[in-house]
Amino acid sequence: MKVALIQQKYYGSKEKTINKTVEMISKTNSDLVVLQELHQNEYFCKSEDTKFFDYADDYKKDIKFWSNISKKFDIVLVTSLFEKRADGIYHNTAYVFDKGKIAGKYRKMHIPDDPGFYEKFYFTEGDLGFEPINTSVGRLGVLVCWDQWYPEAARIMALKGAEVLIYPTAIGWLECPKNRIDELCEKENTKEEKQKMLDAWISVQRGHAVANGLPVITVNRVGSEKDESGVLEGIEFWGNSFVLGPQGEFLARAGMKEEIIEVEIDLNSSKEIRKIWPFLRDRRIDSYKCLQKRYCEKK
Amino acid sequence: MKVALIQQKYYGSKEKTINKTVEMISKTNSDLVVLQELHQNEYFCKSEDTKFFDYADDYKKDIKFWSNISKKFDIVLVTSLFEKRADGIYHNTAYVFDKGKIAGKYRKMHIPDDPGFYEKFYFTEGDLGFEPINTSVGRLGVLVCWDQWYPEAARIMALKGAEVLIYPTAIGWLECPKNRIDELCEKENTKEEKQKMLDAWISVQRGHAVANGLPVITVNRVGSEKDESGVLEGIEFWGNSFVLGPQGEFLARAGMKEEIIEVEIDLNSSKEIRKIWPFLRDRRIDSYKCLQKRYCEKK
Repeated sequence: MKVALIQQKYYGSKEKTINKTVEMISKTNSDLVVLQELHQNEYFCKSEDTKFFDYADDYKKDIKFWSNISKKFDIVLVTSLFEKRADGIYHNTAYVFDKGKIAGKYRKMHIPDDPGFYEKFYFTEGDLGFEPINTSVGRLGVLVCWDQWYPEAARIMALKGAEVLIYPTAIGWLECPKNRIDELCEKENTKEEKQKMLDAWISVQRGHAVANGLPVITVNRVGSEKDESGVLEGIEFWGNSFVLGPQGEFLARAGMKEEIIEVEIDLNSSKEIRKIWPFLRDRRIDSYKCLQKRYCEKK
Repeated sequence: MKVALIQQKYYGSKEKTINKTVEMISKTNSDLVVLQELHQNEYFCKSEDTKFFDYADDYKKDIKFWSNISKKFDIVLVTSLFEKRADGIYHNTAYVFDKGKIAGKYRKMHIPDDPGFYEKFYFTEGDLGFEPINTSVGRLGVLVCWDQWYPEAARIMALKGAEVLIYPTAIGWLECPKNRIDELCEKENTKEEKQKMLDAWISVQRGHAVANGLPVITVNRVGSEKDESGVLEGIEFWGNSFVLGPQGEFLARAGMKEEIIEVEIDLNSSKEIRKIWPFLRDRRIDSYKCLQKRYCEKK
């Protein structure tokens, strides 16, 4: 299976950004194309503003549009859309299209909320659980961004037969206003701290690959996006999209500019790895009850 | 908290090996000392031979011995012993001593079995669950070797209030007999494949640190140990013991020779990290039922 990752910038409007996305897709030659989180617009969760809910009004048109794109280019396409389900119920939803047909959708289950990433304001937690999506290229374990910090999500996808884990993502460093002294911001913005965050983000996902014997595809935004509210200067999305093999090894990795990664993934290598490293065989399901709890207090 | 990791070789007999361990401990100046898996003897699980069960006969004497050592050096000491519980019931058990007192024990929960690591022959699965052990240096999430591939084990320790994850370990590369052509052995023994295995082992544990916002201490054997059964040449234990901070960053790392690592761990850094990266806040405990199952079949 050949996969293309579209790591791109925001171009100031939905139309311009989508045009660029389609142009980039047209340059690929893969069976599967994965887009970044909320790829149609700027990452609007940098602040809490009700005006951004309007972005979800075109949800049904968006579905039709990307369905057509997947048909036109004869691909399986993983998109990340802002779903309006009802007034007051919105989701961060990954739609997967298979050559013009809807293969399935995943509603982001773990919703973050921290400075610059105010997603709990916009998105209701997903209620579809962790269900892999069957497509003509394989059974895809599609998750979204914050999910990547949760071994539970990756494991459940594996236990439900996912053949690959896929994460559309929007992650980056906060840019502090230059006229403001903010302890958190200053601490995070040393070069060393930035590298530590980036490494942590990669490490945890390499962990998912290893623990589950599955390849991982992660597509992140790139470029700087201003915070219109003025609380922060903005976010510098760190790119670094990557593809891992089932031992957590890098198959490909992007830098910090707009780019397309294309790489071959051998789904058979997972099957072989799981024979040599049979982690799934030895799980102690009799002793995992605490995982269902918020916290397992000390006795 | 200052911690010392004793990464050592096997010296041909229990007596010589223990003498060396004690000598190495005497050179440390730490509050917590962690020994490698089954540190008293050779890693005998390279083959299945009933004679090795005799090693467990001195279990109670061993406890007394290491308890005395922890008292003598005024340390918290994490050991890894071969426990005889009854005829036919043996465990791979980590005993933790606190300045002469028994702080607690952990019986290895996940038991491996693959060529050269025939642990299911020797060890009954632990039945004490994943319970951190309270000591004068903190609440220790002691796990053993194969456990390190299981995000479930790390997570449960975190949810039970562990302040650090600790893994005594015995892992290495198989050495193939030179007169034998074995596909698995040959495949594993390229330099590239060896590096991939080592990286995977590190990656999955960095993942545990990140996902749980906890430091990780892993102590591995080093040196080559012959397989007396002659099926394999032996195992080359790869050392590379390490200490990670709560973002999965290396605080210290050993090479492939016998050595002592000593490093300061700031348990407060976990507390701070969990404020910035509040992963535990957003777990979807309503949707993790599949984790209790062996496999969650496709509908």
